[in-house]
Amino acid sequence: MDKEELIKKIVSGELKLYQVEEFTSSRKEALDIRREAISKLTGTELKHVSNYTFDTETVTKKNIENAIGAVQIPLGVAGPLKINGEYAKGSFYVPLATTEGALVASVNRGCSVCTQSGGVNTMIFQDEMTRAPVVKVNTLEDAKKIVQAFKSPEFMEEVRKAVSSTTRHGELLGVDPYVVGKNVFLRFAYDTKDAMGMNMVTIASEAVMHLVEERFGARLIALSSNMCTDKKPAAINVIEGRGRTTVAEITISRDVVLSKLKTTPENVCDVNYRKNFLGSARAVSFGFNAHIANIVAATFIACGQDPSHVVEGSNAITSAEMTDNGDLQFSVSFPSLPLGTVGGGTGVATQSECLSMLGVKGGGDPPGSNARKLAEIIASTALAGELSLLGALASQDLARAHAKYGR
Amino acid sequence: MDKEELIKKIVSGELKLYQVEEFTSSRKEALDIRREAISKLTGTELKHVSNYTFDTETVTKKNIENAIGAVQIPLGVAGPLKINGEYAKGSFYVPLATTEGALVASVNRGCSVCTQSGGVNTMIFQDEMTRAPVVKVNTLEDAKKIVQAFKSPEFMEEVRKAVSSTTRHGELLGVDPYVVGKNVFLRFAYDTKDAMGMNMVTIASEAVMHLVEERFGARLIALSSNMCTDKKPAAINVIEGRGRTTVAEITISRDVVLSKLKTTPENVCDVNYRKNFLGSARAVSFGFNAHIANIVAATFIACGQDPSHVVEGSNAITSAEMTDNGDLQFSVSFPSLPLGTVGGGTGVATQSECLSMLGVKGGGDPPGSNARKLAEIIASTALAGELSLLGALASQDLARAHAKYGR
Amino acid sequence: MDKEELIKKIVSGELKLYQVEEFTSSRKEALDIRREAISKLTGTELKHVSNYTFDTETVTKKNIENAIGAVQIPLGVAGPLKINGEYAKGSFYVPLATTEGALVASVNRGCSVCTQSGGVNTMIFQDEMTRAPVVKVNTLEDAKKIVQAFKSPEFMEEVRKAVSSTTRHGELLGVDPYVVGKNVFLRFAYDTKDAMGMNMVTIASEAVMHLVEERFGARLIALSSNMCTDKKPAAINVIEGRGRTTVAEITISRDVVLSKLKTTPENVCDVNYRKNFLGSARAVSFGFNAHIANIVAATFIACGQDPSHVVEGSNAITSAEMTDNGDLQFSVSFPSLPLGTVGGGTGVATQSECLSMLGVKGGGDPPGSNARKLAEIIASTALAGELSLLGALASQDLARAHAKYGR
Amino acid sequence: MDKEELIKKIVSGELKLYQVEEFTSSRKEALDIRREAISKLTGTELKHVSNYTFDTETVTKKNIENAIGAVQIPLGVAGPLKINGEYAKGSFYVPLATTEGALVASVNRGCSVCTQSGGVNTMIFQDEMTRAPVVKVNTLEDAKKIVQAFKSPEFMEEVRKAVSSTTRHGELLGVDPYVVGKNVFLRFAYDTKDAMGMNMVTIASEAVMHLVEERFGARLIALSSNMCTDKKPAAINVIEGRGRTTVAEITISRDVVLSKLKTTPENVCDVNYRKNFLGSARAVSFGFNAHIANIVAATFIACGQDPSHVVEGSNAITSAEMTDNGDLQFSVSFPSLPLGTVGGGTGVATQSECLSMLGVKGGGDPPGSNARKLAEIIASTALAGELSLLGALASQDLARAHAKYGR
Repeated sequence: MDKEELIKKIVSGELKLYQVEEFTSSRKEALDIRREAISKLTGTELKHVSNYTFDTETVTKKNIENAIGAVQIPLGVAGPLKINGEYAKGSFYVPLATTEGALVASVNRGCSVCTQSGGVNTMIFQDEMTRAPVVKVNTLEDAKKIVQAFKSPEFMEEVRKAVSSTTRHGELLGVDPYVVGKNVFLRFAYDTKDAMGMNMVTIASEAVMHLVEERFGARLIALSSNMCTDKKPAAINVIEGRGRTTVAEITISRDVVLSKLKTTPENVCDVNYRKNFLGSARAVSFGFNAHIANIVAATFIACGQDPSHVVEGSNAITSAEMTDNGDLQFSVSFPSLPLGTVGGGTGVATQSECLSMLGVKGGGDPPGSNARKLAEIIASTALAGELSLLGALASQDLARAHAKYGR
Repeated sequence: MDKEELIKKIVSGELKLYQVEEFTSSRKEALDIRREAISKLTGTELKHVSNYTFDTETVTKKNIENAIGAVQIPLGVAGPLKINGEYAKGSFYVPLATTEGALVASVNRGCSVCTQSGGVNTMIFQDEMTRAPVVKVNTLEDAKKIVQAFKSPEFMEEVRKAVSSTTRHGELLGVDPYVVGKNVFLRFAYDTKDAMGMNMVTIASEAVMHLVEERFGARLIALSSNMCTDKKPAAINVIEGRGRTTVAEITISRDVVLSKLKTTPENVCDVNYRKNFLGSARAVSFGFNAHIANIVAATFIACGQDPSHVVEGSNAITSAEMTDNGDLQFSVSFPSLPLGTVGGGTGVATQSECLSMLGVKGGGDPPGSNARKLAEIIASTALAGELSLLGALASQDLARAHAKYGR
Repeated sequence: MDKEELIKKIVSGELKLYQVEEFTSSRKEALDIRREAISKLTGTELKHVSNYTFDTETVTKKNIENAIGAVQIPLGVAGPLKINGEYAKGSFYVPLATTEGALVASVNRGCSVCTQSGGVNTMIFQDEMTRAPVVKVNTLEDAKKIVQAFKSPEFMEEVRKAVSSTTRHGELLGVDPYVVGKNVFLRFAYDTKDAMGMNMVTIASEAVMHLVEERFGARLIALSSNMCTDKKPAAINVIEGRGRTTVAEITISRDVVLSKLKTTPENVCDVNYRKNFLGSARAVSFGFNAHIANIVAATFIACGQDPSHVVEGSNAITSAEMTDNGDLQFSVSFPSLPLGTVGGGTGVATQSECLSMLGVKGGGDPPGSNARKLAEIIASTALAGELSLLGALASQDLARAHAKYGR
Repeated sequence: MDKEELIKKIVSGELKLYQVEEFTSSRKEALDIRREAISKLTGTELKHVSNYTFDTETVTKKNIENAIGAVQIPLGVAGPLKINGEYAKGSFYVPLATTEGALVASVNRGCSVCTQSGGVNTMIFQDEMTRAPVVKVNTLEDAKKIVQAFKSPEFMEEVRKAVSSTTRHGELLGVDPYVVGKNVFLRFAYDTKDAMGMNMVTIASEAVMHLVEERFGARLIALSSNMCTDKKPAAINVIEGRGRTTVAEITISRDVVLSKLKTTPENVCDVNYRKNFLGSARAVSFGFNAHIANIVAATFIACGQDPSHVVEGSNAITSAEMTDNGDLQFSVSFPSLPLGTVGGGTGVATQSECLSMLGVKGGGDPPGSNARKLAEIIASTALAGELSLLGALASQDLARAHAKYGR
């Protein structure tokens, strides 16, 4: 079939969207045919989404099905931002992909305040990607046997063997069992090195679950049970952590708060307390922060991360405290920041360039160091954004900023 | 200064990133200079991010600061999806921008099952964008006066006047007061028509707060107090709703479940119960669903929505129930889906094309109808994605699907 | 049958525990026989539980089945506590029934500080007992019809008529509908005057649900759907309130904090922030307080309230803030404090005396005023207890206090 | 001073309530004087609260301050209840202290159904009482040092030594660190044997914190930081457990459901799903159950437990599922049930009799076995109560039951 025929068949419904590749010599050709069919079907000229520069072959195999092109997200830069991390050391220019006016400007202002104050201190306190299958058991005794098995060195030896049969990179760090009636939830935690790691931990956990099924007569219900918890707001992530558990903090001198943020440390603390704590308490929120999700989303999209993981990323706690000297102690704590520098969207051309800008493209040396560096950078950038917005609120100029930047 | 000089000054730090526009004749020129400077500063060749087709002038004024180009997100299509909504009626081809392999394929499978089953039924049950300022009062009596004022028709008349002085489109629907100690939180709810509306409601609420400050001697602490709750996981959104509160549902006959999903209605219900309810209950999650965030994120990015709003969007409840006939009753309920078809990123070229594909570009007639149509489409698409994943889990092939599509 | 025979038959299992009353001339006799049988069956001498002074006839009809006697809870008093409420005005001696050593002493210390500081200011901001049935509907259109009906004055007229056919005291204040798939949850809110009101609102809501079933072809699933939410920790109560929504606050001068609490206002704020906000945020708690549940439980048990309602009562937010003068602004906000002065356990002899001590026995004049007065007293007492414990923590002497009082 | 003089001085305010003991020869005399003074001060005849039979000397030293007598809570019994636990084996008559009419009757009905069905199966899956102090550190490096120290065998050796210097019974099971900004929360978990153990764990943790302060230059802010979490609704308890983590389950044959509960297994599952899961999900509740708090409160008060701990106890998940045979699989899972059989109110005379009725008075052999037996009994009783209420709801007779029993 030639191009026009294929388009016609898609439009008529004879050919499914995902079948086009079967009839074309290249995936690029299939993409174009599909786009033209969609253009016809929807009466929409699709001249912009056809413009993209990533490698069609790779991207349509790894990242997207039924491809028709690309969406362009405006990219801005904030910086320089001085960071004193374990992995991120020095000055960074941080790429932010967003369509929300005022966001990059606000983060940029925060970067300036932080850099002037000696930079953001940051560390990773835990680094675990989790996956939690659920099995059904026949008796509570069986549930207890499973719970106890995962405390026994012998069984754990077998478990580790099952894991290592599926992955070279991933390393099992622990397993937490939870029993609800005759259901046992097993939350596996892995070091996934530079990968965000969801695929890796799913496959590894499946291998272990075969063992559990055989050994204990349990029946696997689902490889993912919502106790992972992936891409849903969940207290288990806030409490136990998921992905890169990162803290960023800085002390801003009273003088800098006065001169750059046009407010006082006391006032920043006051706004933070009433807005981020009293407000979040009464709204029963997992997020005790002002707009962390904005910065996490913009850096995630720029850097090829999964934007659905903004859900967990927004769980952060922003704390503003007075020091004994009257300066401002400011921190943002991320219990659950899932990210990676290999796999997923990190290999798409523009995203790859953004990772390069931060010096975190691909696997790190040692493994894991690039992903951790990226976590420290994003946490520090988010701190800069929080500081800027809370400063702005403290001086009551949010709405004016919005009006000016058209958000 | 010429281009090279400007680049040099940025690299040396003499010129701030945001100052470039002051020295160039066009914003496009400033963008290129900035990108080249960042390229130098970070030692990164930025040849892909320089490719974009949106209008630099408009986008750098409205959507981004310190622009250096664009990030490309692969775009796929799922469909046709039959939808029987109040606003969305007919067959749709839904654009999904994602780098997560297997996602579009999975949603597409769900669309096929839903369309074969007569289409997704969907309705919007509430449509309110909220903003919640917080004020400090001097006495509990003052707090009570404020609470009572917002119940008085006379005062509400003044409030509406204040609102209408700031917006032609927005309409105040109600105000809920919450008192914590000597702090009064006022949660304003507006009909923002086709706009997502955050800017509109911020400006309108500010006008009302001037009134509150003057009338009751209260002190405005912050225009946004986290009781909105914007971009944080919060129970108040799950319960009271925010944005377009939408429900989508469908009945899938037993035969279709058996033939297309390769499982039984009972098994889908069982997986949904143990994973999405027992699991989410024990994880203390706001999200009783499998992967709603994936579909919300992918459609939001394609359609120029704020990806940070995926946080609220992922609060959904997926319910799988048996009908008396042994069929599968399946629904997804979104308490808080904030979105719009005007403003924000909706005007960027590629995003605008995606909105056109769905017939929801720009303001609707009557106002609000385009945004509501988009909400119904996204809810229905998300239902298709949920159905597909739960079906897949029910037949235990999640890991194989992942392996195949390389996620 | 004589007494010995009855005891023998209970022991042998021929007679059920609840059947004894059928064979005795008085309920007191049945109670004694049952206790003796239990004594035999369990080999336990039950000489203390047989001591009680309440009226057996009334109590075994209204408050307990299968009665065998009473449990004695030690009763202490804290006070005087000066309260400046809308309903509670003057000095109060508050009864606390508890077995937790140190509790009454701690509350008493707080009362002394509060009274010396001019008394606790307190107000009730909302007063609504809720009940939320759930119905299943056939279509989303039916769901919408129900939602809209409850906004129509005509239908609400019928609803109010249905309510008033069941209760003289209760008054319907509002109905909030929530739709999840094909299920509609209707949260009814009533003014129940001096009664806690659960029985009243259940019966009234049932009458309305008959109307809903008939009118909309809906099927009532349960009269209580967990959206009430009764006796479970739930965000809906924190946010929307349940029972008497009460705030208590006081300003303690710097001098008094120094001299009586042996710490500084700053230190109390600091402990409150790190413990009650940072700690509760990371633990994902609904309770942003130190030990509100202790005081609510002890006053509830003394005053004949339902101790299961301590679950909702413990949702409180304790806020400690600095005033501009360097004094301590301290408040406790109770979104959901369900209580009453008639019905339930309020008529039992000892509980009745405790209510009398506070001047709130029986129905108030006007109706509701006694219950509201009790709410203000309990909120103020809880504030005193919070202040005392936070002061103690601030001076690091918690463990010593525990050691001394043997808790 | 003689009695009248003391009363006069209390009434006039010259003598504080807690000072009476200094002027009397016995604590009983002080109690009577105080009561008479309160009687005068409040114009209330206190003839019932003066009736009690516990040992004044002991109780006023250990359990109450400012004592004036006792409150009597009506005591009923439900049973026999057959339990197949690890610790509780056989038939039990369970004491319930309550003023809520219909409660004992409802539980009793559930006991009958469960006993007829072979008894409740129950097990304890974790047994840890927790205490979580918070310290402030100077740098993130210090925070990391603390986190790492608690993973080092050498440091843990010192920690255990510090613990064992304070308690013979308690045993440290683990320590989980959580970092928020420059604050480190350390959640200690202990085996407290037959004690509920709050006092024990507070003192033990204090000893460890001295070590932490000295070693790492950290400053102790509070011995209890709300990450314990004690007596507040908190996800950390739901997820990680606190006290006796217990599961109870039973399979009820279809026939028994039909004949005794007058409904079908399907209907019980349906009500449980829509009420306890859909309802709790939309209300954002920690409690996925019908009325667990009622049974926990009534058994806790009867057995001398701290009624404030009902807050954690009500976190339970009730699951109703169909077996392959069409029978009803029913379970209640308690993540956080704190209780003990020594200390607190367990020694008060009437409470002590209730513990004896269950064969769990005092310390068990081996230590801990009595408390665990009590946990299994309460969990099983609560299951009986849940089954009965859900059965009643399923047959729509809740309101009639209420009307009949006057609740």
